[in-house]
Amino acid sequence: MADLKIFFDNVSTTRVDPEVLEDMLPYFSQHYGNPSSLHDFGDTAHDALDNARSQVAALIGAGEEEIYFTSCGTESNNLALWGLGRAAKGKGKHIISSVIEHQSIINPLKDMKKEGWEITRIGVDSEGMVDPDEIQKAINDDTVLISIMHANNEVGTIQRIRKISDIARQKEILFHSDGVATAGIIPVDVNELGVDAYSFSAQQLYGPKGAAALYLRKGIRIKPLLLGGIQERGRRAGTENIPAIVGFGKACEIAKDGMGKNMAHITDIRDRLIEGISKSIDKTKLNGHPTRRIPGSAHISFEFIEGESILLMLNMEGIFAASGSSCASQALKSSYVLTEMGLSPTMAQGSISFSLGKYNTSDEVNRTLEVLPPIIERLRKMSPLFKE
Amino acid sequence: MADLKIFFDNVSTTRVDPEVLEDMLPYFSQHYGNPSSLHDFGDTAHDALDNARSQVAALIGAGEEEIYFTSCGTESNNLALWGLGRAAKGKGKHIISSVIEHQSIINPLKDMKKEGWEITRIGVDSEGMVDPDEIQKAINDDTVLISIMHANNEVGTIQRIRKISDIARQKEILFHSDGVATAGIIPVDVNELGVDAYSFSAQQLYGPKGAAALYLRKGIRIKPLLLGGIQERGRRAGTENIPAIVGFGKACEIAKDGMGKNMAHITDIRDRLIEGISKSIDKTKLNGHPTRRIPGSAHISFEFIEGESILLMLNMEGIFAASGSSCASQALKSSYVLTEMGLSPTMAQGSISFSLGKYNTSDEVNRTLEVLPPIIERLRKMSPLFKE
Repeated sequence: MADLKIFFDNVSTTRVDPEVLEDMLPYFSQHYGNPSSLHDFGDTAHDALDNARSQVAALIGAGEEEIYFTSCGTESNNLALWGLGRAAKGKGKHIISSVIEHQSIINPLKDMKKEGWEITRIGVDSEGMVDPDEIQKAINDDTVLISIMHANNEVGTIQRIRKISDIARQKEILFHSDGVATAGIIPVDVNELGVDAYSFSAQQLYGPKGAAALYLRKGIRIKPLLLGGIQERGRRAGTENIPAIVGFGKACEIAKDGMGKNMAHITDIRDRLIEGISKSIDKTKLNGHPTRRIPGSAHISFEFIEGESILLMLNMEGIFAASGSSCASQALKSSYVLTEMGLSPTMAQGSISFSLGKYNTSDEVNRTLEVLPPIIERLRKMSPLFKE
Repeated sequence: MADLKIFFDNVSTTRVDPEVLEDMLPYFSQHYGNPSSLHDFGDTAHDALDNARSQVAALIGAGEEEIYFTSCGTESNNLALWGLGRAAKGKGKHIISSVIEHQSIINPLKDMKKEGWEITRIGVDSEGMVDPDEIQKAINDDTVLISIMHANNEVGTIQRIRKISDIARQKEILFHSDGVATAGIIPVDVNELGVDAYSFSAQQLYGPKGAAALYLRKGIRIKPLLLGGIQERGRRAGTENIPAIVGFGKACEIAKDGMGKNMAHITDIRDRLIEGISKSIDKTKLNGHPTRRIPGSAHISFEFIEGESILLMLNMEGIFAASGSSCASQALKSSYVLTEMGLSPTMAQGSISFSLGKYNTSDEVNRTLEVLPPIIERLRKMSPLFKE
């Protein structure tokens, strides 16, 4: 690994804030009780759980009793789809979603389709936006659930969630949104957004892996995915991962307090990265929406070359970015999100997602702007497509 | 909380071994990459995942490719039942289990029953043993899966797993065993046991909460429970909880190396506790099997009084034990395991599970033997049942 390490893959996971880790530490070998136990050791764990629930709820303007802890964003999304779908059984079997959702939405929906559900997947425009009117048109008497992500994890486009929730409410249809790329990153208020369910995860907001949540508006019925003990008020069995949940709580508190400052800093360096690239390198394209985008997202296509090659050469310089979603990266296919946005295959193949976070610096952007132009030049010289 | 703290609830969860925590620490804020990412940060996480998988596999004599990481024992059990059941669809819809399984087996089976599965629950004798002959008799042409726990989490009885697996193999029926109370505690070799699937969890073997595994014999098909990315070779979607998995691996390594010593120590102090209680207190009964039991288990009924009251008074002395399973404790019902073993309601109500672990000492047992007799005497004096 190069000595200098520049982590521009914050949408895939983030560094645990040292303050978060500090709060977690006593819960491994000191306060290690099981919150369900009827003794002081259990009580200490239970108090920690309550405190974290209140911190997590506060980040998104929810009530404490509306937060259900899970093990990861994928579990929250699976629980939302299966759980809300099954609880609505009898009312109808139609779900509306989009073509650019994370795989933890797309793949459960494929499975539900096999089990007799009707799934409508709404397309997006070239900027990655879902048109709320198309959702309105797709609704039929059988529709019980709409699931549209808040912001896309690859290109950063932020959807018009409030417009969609207005439609859903009017038709009395449940509305879930995957907020893994947004909670803790931009201001989120579940009441302003008007969502009934909202997934988010600690590891995307400088908290630890192993803790995530599903917000579920009070009074909404859901069938649990994991059955066993009566943890999480019967909605999610399994001993609570107390250290990770404590860390999630602290991370939410820190994210809330520092949001304005972080958004300003990240947007500033992200814009300098985008402008620097567009000035120094020909034939590039910024993907996603020009303004409705999360602060850290700089998703750029470099025509005529392969994203994987760029990644590899950046990696040798100690710069860590991504092409497509990390959850799909091992499959080495080009991103379905870009294809759905109508990018040509050569543009889609040559795309890099730089996702910046609060720990990134101006110097790191400068360093990237130094090494990237010669990398692109070298790769294009080697590319048969560029010569044509 | 009393100054002296004696933790006799090791079956509900264990203290994280400080050596385990030490191995985990670099993966929070330093090597925090996502193992699916295509850069050095991802590679470091991926290497850690591979190493942990090999440590975990070695504990139970499995191949690395036979270990699938999950978030907790409950998830492993749910995955085994739903996943193996659904993958066997078409072959039959009958599952055999027992009446004393953990709730993370019992409750998914109840749900599967609602969805059209036939479930046979085999009873146990007064020592908590399942008779393999009864399993043999329960098998019909529709039977696709048998799930019997290795040792019971409340009374510690160890089942005759090999006898059951011989029956299952002869009939070509899949056999899953819940090993949450046994893996890392007594020697486990999945090939000697002859199981096709085996659940176990880090938090019961001095590892962290948030990591568990399902062993699945090579070649056996399973349907995933969580869908999304292609983590765990497509069998469990969701970003891997690297710090917890690293800790799980180290905990398995330590458990394997120290097993003989720990078993001897724990059995020794456990037997001193049992003998001390039986000598100093009348009308007690040791529950579970006299010899086929896990080393730490001392489950004792104190006639004429309520287990909850004993727990409360022990708690005031800084001694933390349990009545029934912690996963059910908040429901405040008496244990179904004891009822199924045929204990009378007054005996079942007055039961305490002392579960000892490697950190417990002779002094802690001495202290317990000092404070327990006067507690029982005081409670019996107050009990209307005792006066009769």
